[in-house]
Amino acid sequence: MSSTLNDFNEYRSRMNDRIMDADNLVLKRLFNLDANTYAEGALPVKTKEMLGLVASMVLRCDDCVKYHLIKCHENGVTKSEVFEIFAVANIVGGTIVIPHLRRAVEFWEQLET
Amino acid sequence: MSSTLNDFNEYRSRMNDRIMDADNLVLKRLFNLDANTYAEGALPVKTKEMLGLVASMVLRCDDCVKYHLIKCHENGVTKSEVFEIFAVANIVGGTIVIPHLRRAVEFWEQLET
Amino acid sequence: MSSTLNDFNEYRSRMNDRIMDADNLVLKRLFNLDANTYAEGALPVKTKEMLGLVASMVLRCDDCVKYHLIKCHENGVTKSEVFEIFAVANIVGGTIVIPHLRRAVEFWEQLET
Amino acid sequence: MSSTLNDFNEYRSRMNDRIMDADNLVLKRLFNLDANTYAEGALPVKTKEMLGLVASMVLRCDDCVKYHLIKCHENGVTKSEVFEIFAVANIVGGTIVIPHLRRAVEFWEQLET
Amino acid sequence: MSSTLNDFNEYRSRMNDRIMDADNLVLKRLFNLDANTYAEGALPVKTKEMLGLVASMVLRCDDCVKYHLIKCHENGVTKSEVFEIFAVANIVGGTIVIPHLRRAVEFWEQLET
Amino acid sequence: MSSTLNDFNEYRSRMNDRIMDADNLVLKRLFNLDANTYAEGALPVKTKEMLGLVASMVLRCDDCVKYHLIKCHENGVTKSEVFEIFAVANIVGGTIVIPHLRRAVEFWEQLET
Repeated sequence: MSSTLNDFNEYRSRMNDRIMDADNLVLKRLFNLDANTYAEGALPVKTKEMLGLVASMVLRCDDCVKYHLIKCHENGVTKSEVFEIFAVANIVGGTIVIPHLRRAVEFWEQLET
Repeated sequence: MSSTLNDFNEYRSRMNDRIMDADNLVLKRLFNLDANTYAEGALPVKTKEMLGLVASMVLRCDDCVKYHLIKCHENGVTKSEVFEIFAVANIVGGTIVIPHLRRAVEFWEQLET
Repeated sequence: MSSTLNDFNEYRSRMNDRIMDADNLVLKRLFNLDANTYAEGALPVKTKEMLGLVASMVLRCDDCVKYHLIKCHENGVTKSEVFEIFAVANIVGGTIVIPHLRRAVEFWEQLET
Repeated sequence: MSSTLNDFNEYRSRMNDRIMDADNLVLKRLFNLDANTYAEGALPVKTKEMLGLVASMVLRCDDCVKYHLIKCHENGVTKSEVFEIFAVANIVGGTIVIPHLRRAVEFWEQLET
Repeated sequence: MSSTLNDFNEYRSRMNDRIMDADNLVLKRLFNLDANTYAEGALPVKTKEMLGLVASMVLRCDDCVKYHLIKCHENGVTKSEVFEIFAVANIVGGTIVIPHLRRAVEFWEQLET
Repeated sequence: MSSTLNDFNEYRSRMNDRIMDADNLVLKRLFNLDANTYAEGALPVKTKEMLGLVASMVLRCDDCVKYHLIKCHENGVTKSEVFEIFAVANIVGGTIVIPHLRRAVEFWEQLET
């Protein structure tokens, strides 16, 4: 079962702080670069977040999927659109993606309510 | 620690319903195709379920492993046989499969009792 | 080094025919379903092909990357856009994606000429 | 395109000798253990080789696929059976497995002639 | 959130016993070989445990990461060193490694207290 | 069969130039960050290159393996040491790593001559 939205955000934010505190320059710059990757460019933010979502899903990273679902929802991705992203991920990545799909659908429903 | 058999089945079934409700044609057809893949053919169901189990295990998908363990158990795979499947998975996939082996063994013991 | 566009298309098409000839129903339906996944829907074809490209790249499947590069090029994805897709793939998937990036850039240049 | 059967066997055998020459005890024992994994046990050799094939295919290891195709062919796996194994691999592992399927089918045809 | 050190050790040890009880020769020998892999050799134990840690992290195996963190800590790896290992893992493996980094940092802090 | 050292270096360097020419800021910064990751720090360069090698090998990236083999060789890693790194990679990652081991051994022999 999926963790709740609040638990997810709280743990993510708390541990990111702990990582920044360790003051490893490579990790700090990677976190910064990660944020820049999804900034407006030749492609709009919404498209980039959809790319981040499908990439996270085929790589079967539940926490990454949750993060990009939050961002997709904020950027106006609709339910029909998000299910088409899920469809691409499950066809490309196969049925081993289905357990991650279940958790993603559960999390998306939290975001919609 | 592994979730229990009932929790596993309940969550799986509930979320599959939610996915079907979304009415995405590609996902619906993939779910249908998935079921057909393990139907009797040139190879018997038991063999196909063993193939599904080893594939799930090397890909390190705990929920997929549990599903195929249930099916293997239903189709008469014995404990000695299931451990030989585990052995193939751990040799092909390496020691990173061992944590999944632990959870699989725990789940198999639930199925046997 | 990347195979040329013609070699890629010829081998892909020839072997797909051999696979269809074997008349395995599951594989036939999967190929058909794969084609439907990228059809116009809530998301336009161009977006879906970009999703297919980034998914293929993080999963490090050179042939899949080439296929979606062809489709992206046909659907008007620009060089700046394709490099932003590459950027997402390399940040999400890490520096092990870079060798695939090199081959993708080489193939993209063939498509542009 | 797939390398030929002879090239495959020659390179594999030559490099295995080079690895054994290095006299690393862990690698030597792993090679030995690998051979034992597919020996007759609760499951027959044919079944174990089919398990090795599907595991290799979902992990997208072309050389491992070729090795187990040789062994499956030697142990009497038929064309219909091998395509059912391919079907399981492509459904579980998704369309990124298709390029490996193409090379596997080409190699299987070499084995049949 | 990360399981605690005691829970981790207790479950690992209990399930390893269950696996050994099943008396599958291949699995028994793999467990034995695994232990030998990290023994003093041309490389010191500390270096080998660092290698095991980075390999576990890029393969995104939380339980394997925890095991090697315990061993690294026992062998005198410092906080600065462990963060440099984390940095290599996150650059090579990309941002999908970050959720595993969060859990690793949380577990490391348990080891330090 | 492994490409030769010269071919490897020439292609890598030529395509890196093509990537830099595209002027995508995220990719440029990732390439720069990648270089910094292996700089002297709490851990010496030699250790970091060994970490990069084992990470590349378990992720089965032949080009990444070759790059780190060159760097390991430059930094004085001996044949016995490199085979112990190979041993960790093959135990953690399983027998699907063996084809990559064969190509790595072939490339290492080029470096030694």
